[in-house]
Amino acid sequence: MSPPIVDVHTHVYPPAYMQMLRARRTVPYVHDPNNEDPRLIILSSDDDSSIPLDQRGRPVDSSYWDITVKLAFMRQHGINCSVISLANPWLDFIEPNEAQMWAERINDDLEATCAEANKAADPENALSLAQKETLFAMGALPLSSPTPNIVVAEIKRLKTLPHLRGVIMGTSGLGKGLDDARLDPIWEALQETDTLMFLHPHYGLPDEAFGGPGVTSRYGHVLPLALGFPLETTIAVTRMLLSGVFDRFPGLKVLLAHSGGTLPFLAGRIESCIHHERKFVSGGGDVPGPQRSIWDVLKTNIYLDAVVYGKPGLEAAIAASGSDRLLFGTDHPFFPPLDTKVSDWPSVTTNYKAINATFETIPDTVADVLGGNATRILNLK
Amino acid sequence: MSPPIVDVHTHVYPPAYMQMLRARRTVPYVHDPNNEDPRLIILSSDDDSSIPLDQRGRPVDSSYWDITVKLAFMRQHGINCSVISLANPWLDFIEPNEAQMWAERINDDLEATCAEANKAADPENALSLAQKETLFAMGALPLSSPTPNIVVAEIKRLKTLPHLRGVIMGTSGLGKGLDDARLDPIWEALQETDTLMFLHPHYGLPDEAFGGPGVTSRYGHVLPLALGFPLETTIAVTRMLLSGVFDRFPGLKVLLAHSGGTLPFLAGRIESCIHHERKFVSGGGDVPGPQRSIWDVLKTNIYLDAVVYGKPGLEAAIAASGSDRLLFGTDHPFFPPLDTKVSDWPSVTTNYKAINATFETIPDTVADVLGGNATRILNLK
Repeated sequence: MSPPIVDVHTHVYPPAYMQMLRARRTVPYVHDPNNEDPRLIILSSDDDSSIPLDQRGRPVDSSYWDITVKLAFMRQHGINCSVISLANPWLDFIEPNEAQMWAERINDDLEATCAEANKAADPENALSLAQKETLFAMGALPLSSPTPNIVVAEIKRLKTLPHLRGVIMGTSGLGKGLDDARLDPIWEALQETDTLMFLHPHYGLPDEAFGGPGVTSRYGHVLPLALGFPLETTIAVTRMLLSGVFDRFPGLKVLLAHSGGTLPFLAGRIESCIHHERKFVSGGGDVPGPQRSIWDVLKTNIYLDAVVYGKPGLEAAIAASGSDRLLFGTDHPFFPPLDTKVSDWPSVTTNYKAINATFETIPDTVADVLGGNATRILNLK
Repeated sequence: MSPPIVDVHTHVYPPAYMQMLRARRTVPYVHDPNNEDPRLIILSSDDDSSIPLDQRGRPVDSSYWDITVKLAFMRQHGINCSVISLANPWLDFIEPNEAQMWAERINDDLEATCAEANKAADPENALSLAQKETLFAMGALPLSSPTPNIVVAEIKRLKTLPHLRGVIMGTSGLGKGLDDARLDPIWEALQETDTLMFLHPHYGLPDEAFGGPGVTSRYGHVLPLALGFPLETTIAVTRMLLSGVFDRFPGLKVLLAHSGGTLPFLAGRIESCIHHERKFVSGGGDVPGPQRSIWDVLKTNIYLDAVVYGKPGLEAAIAASGSDRLLFGTDHPFFPPLDTKVSDWPSVTTNYKAINATFETIPDTVADVLGGNATRILNLK
């Protein structure tokens, strides 16, 4: 029996969330007046009034909300277990007084979906990951709530839901980024409950970073998705580090999307710039600066998914955090094949190939990255 | 006799350039009213009117303009040969009608400095890299000239200067980035003359990328230098790729600063996003998109310096471009030790240590990265 293959980076928009997006007219929203060709507009750069509504954003189909489609995708790609999470932009935009309700609704829905799928998958042996497709989930947080206490309460409530394993979070936090001291009660709750936080990008970089809107749109989504997303993640976690979050909460566990954005590659430069910063106390200034080394944080607090589409990224991830902290993922249902006749998704097979090529001489490590690490770290049983 | 150690990433502001900066009052400029404590203000974010002029930017000392200080730095750190280049922002800001004059002045000055240093270093044997400190240089380009022809002429003229090896360029090109079709005559001239282009960041990212000016300044220079600079390089070279520069000029040779910014790490994601882009012809759209694979470009057109301060970055660089395309550098005189009593610069020893740790079992490769590759690629004899 092969060890289970676990996908830790796989998203859903539950039907209730889709319905809410369909009712909206500002980002994020779904445009589908005839109920036949829905378009998903989640990036502000996609909400371009010079483009007809029915061509804005990207097509969105049942793979986003129908869990049977995800289970078929898993079967097709040999994935035994998926840890599903709400796709971006999560609940970031919800009216404050509705945030708690939406978090509870989404998380209860995720719990029910996992329970139902696992029951259907193998009624006799729901605990066996290796035989059928099973699901676990990461919870969404009501970050727009009027008070962090509501977020803390939801983090604690998630521990009572049997299939919930961790939470997913964007980079805006309570609206001011992840170095916001008002997040401390949330970090404390995550640490205290030993809850993994999956940090995922959504907002990217301002168009000016790419040369302005004209340049950005010239190349479709390539610049925002290939460069903006990873840098957003890197900036967010670096701000956490610089503001001392990992000093104050040394037990915090953070899974970084897309192998850390670019964090493993840039860690050395970040560390060097910190050591050469005159503003920090160590450089003679009056700002504390981070106390722990980034190398320590990478090996103690950080986990990395293996969604990096190549050996160079994986090599950096391993050197930074270790192969025992690297977890297979797909980013499903994003990046479907453009050629609809293709059955295996290149966005998935590229990652499989990269993992196999990187660890070709150590099959045990391939198995760990594909599922063993996730099973252990997320306690998937 | 040990093989020579060559520093390909080391900057100067020749005295004439410093004098010009001292006369300016807008970025870039040097503030030094009493001729005793000059401050260098080259980043627009440093030109903060809420900070007193004598505290803006960073201190600048003779290590920037006195070549004997650089030679002493080289001796201190065991560096046999330096390929010096004008520091950012080069000649990007020069009035159009003065650009050619400044390029010729700077490049002639660099040539004279190298000739003089090499003569002083070893009058009997100026060709021996391994015995004394020797200098070569990369030329600056008059990119603000009224016409690209003037840039092309300077590229050709540089081939007549015996110590010039390549050119250094920022990411703005003729003002609109490196995917500007008006640069084609310049790429053609670089290809035709087999001139290496050293692509170096300066402009970073907009403050909004880091959460606004308040967040950026909270951590001194860390966010702009550690993250903004590498991303700027990555965006610039990705725009070159996306616009087909490497398809039209397959012989172009580009040395990327800071091990490519983040290019090696993100190459897989860039390639995946290109393959999934509906706007490109391969995805059913009407924009050509790049024809060559990024992996091919990385192994054919790209060279990477080894200024990445850690093993993860080096591992990614090697996996992407190969250890035979990786070249030691220091970024001198930037990142001096904050503790002035320290003689070995940590910004240099960190890179030495990372290179030794990465190739600990293959000393020949250490020697290649430290100098053999540069000697071969830049023809340093």
